Amino acid sequence: MSHLSPLVEQLIVSLQCLPGVGPKSAKRMALHLLEREREGGKILAESISLSLEQIGKCKNCRFYSENPVCSICNDMKRDSSLICVVETASDLLAIEESSQFKGVYFVLHGYLSPLDGIGPKELGLDQLINTAKQGSVKEIILAINPSLEGEATSHYIYSSLKDMNISLSALARGVPLSSEIEYLDGGTLMLAFQGRNKIRI
Amino acid sequence: MSHLSPLVEQLIVSLQCLPGVGPKSAKRMALHLLEREREGGKILAESISLSLEQIGKCKNCRFYSENPVCSICNDMKRDSSLICVVETASDLLAIEESSQFKGVYFVLHGYLSPLDGIGPKELGLDQLINTAKQGSVKEIILAINPSLEGEATSHYIYSSLKDMNISLSALARGVPLSSEIEYLDGGTLMLAFQGRNKIRI
Repeated sequence: MSHLSPLVEQLIVSLQCLPGVGPKSAKRMALHLLEREREGGKILAESISLSLEQIGKCKNCRFYSENPVCSICNDMKRDSSLICVVETASDLLAIEESSQFKGVYFVLHGYLSPLDGIGPKELGLDQLINTAKQGSVKEIILAINPSLEGEATSHYIYSSLKDMNISLSALARGVPLSSEIEYLDGGTLMLAFQGRNKIRI
Repeated sequence: MSHLSPLVEQLIVSLQCLPGVGPKSAKRMALHLLEREREGGKILAESISLSLEQIGKCKNCRFYSENPVCSICNDMKRDSSLICVVETASDLLAIEESSQFKGVYFVLHGYLSPLDGIGPKELGLDQLINTAKQGSVKEIILAINPSLEGEATSHYIYSSLKDMNISLSALARGVPLSSEIEYLDGGTLMLAFQGRNKIRI
């Protein structure tokens, strides 16, 4: 794009580090910022650099926070004896949005993947096991994706914790709401049949 | 989103100044930056603030550039006697990408809209007319959108320049490539009939 001045070109390239942003939308974003969002863009730049500088991981649950302990762990209304283990921060946010869960979290930031050098230590599992050992945890819910790697990770956590006096559970598998049985995969259907519940009227 | 720390929340809000970015994708972008693009994010923040600080409008054509005169106007291989007038910088980039045009541009950054306080001065038309008066311009092509406002703007430019010794033209109207006649609007079809060309074999 030799017709662009170097700085405009650099702005378009650097916007492409955002997920889902290719050359076309980066160009649109760059022109939008230059054209009518100079104020918002300035705030955005400051916000990104401040965030990257100051936001680290909560020392309890490994979720993102600029404080040593995040807002969820700090919330006295939440039940810290109930820990929900998730793979990613996005999973945590999805669960928070459903407003169903009143315990605390533990974010793995990935799954076990020995070939990529991601072992229990990288997922913070030693920390989770230590917390469990301290005796105040009553239940750990594994809200881990039903992928091959997720299942392996769940299994590892299960075997590390099964001898402690802690209730271990996993999210129910079955037919999601607003889905059509016609289009569900066989594995889900099988699990939905196995986990069928008696109808109570 | 009380479960988010203030800085994370602020990052998500400020990302929404980008076009096409709503709360969901802003959240995804924020987590992506924190999770695995800290380096790219730092570069992005610097690039945005540097750009907003330094990029202004080329004094000849009003396209964006960090230099007083943009790369296109500075390019000696381009024909400065041929000016293509466009509404937006995006239009300029679309034309540049087709690599068909070897003249220079003039960017209006909008169209005449008296109710919004956008008159000839805001569009830089006095500057365009001054350039035309200097006598080195041979042709001005109006590549302005066929909207009501665009047509009014074209008409204004036409009447300001028609008495000078400059050829004035507008982009051809007709059937776009890769379209289906079945789905074309009546106005386009009418213009395509009026502008029909003799087939030469």
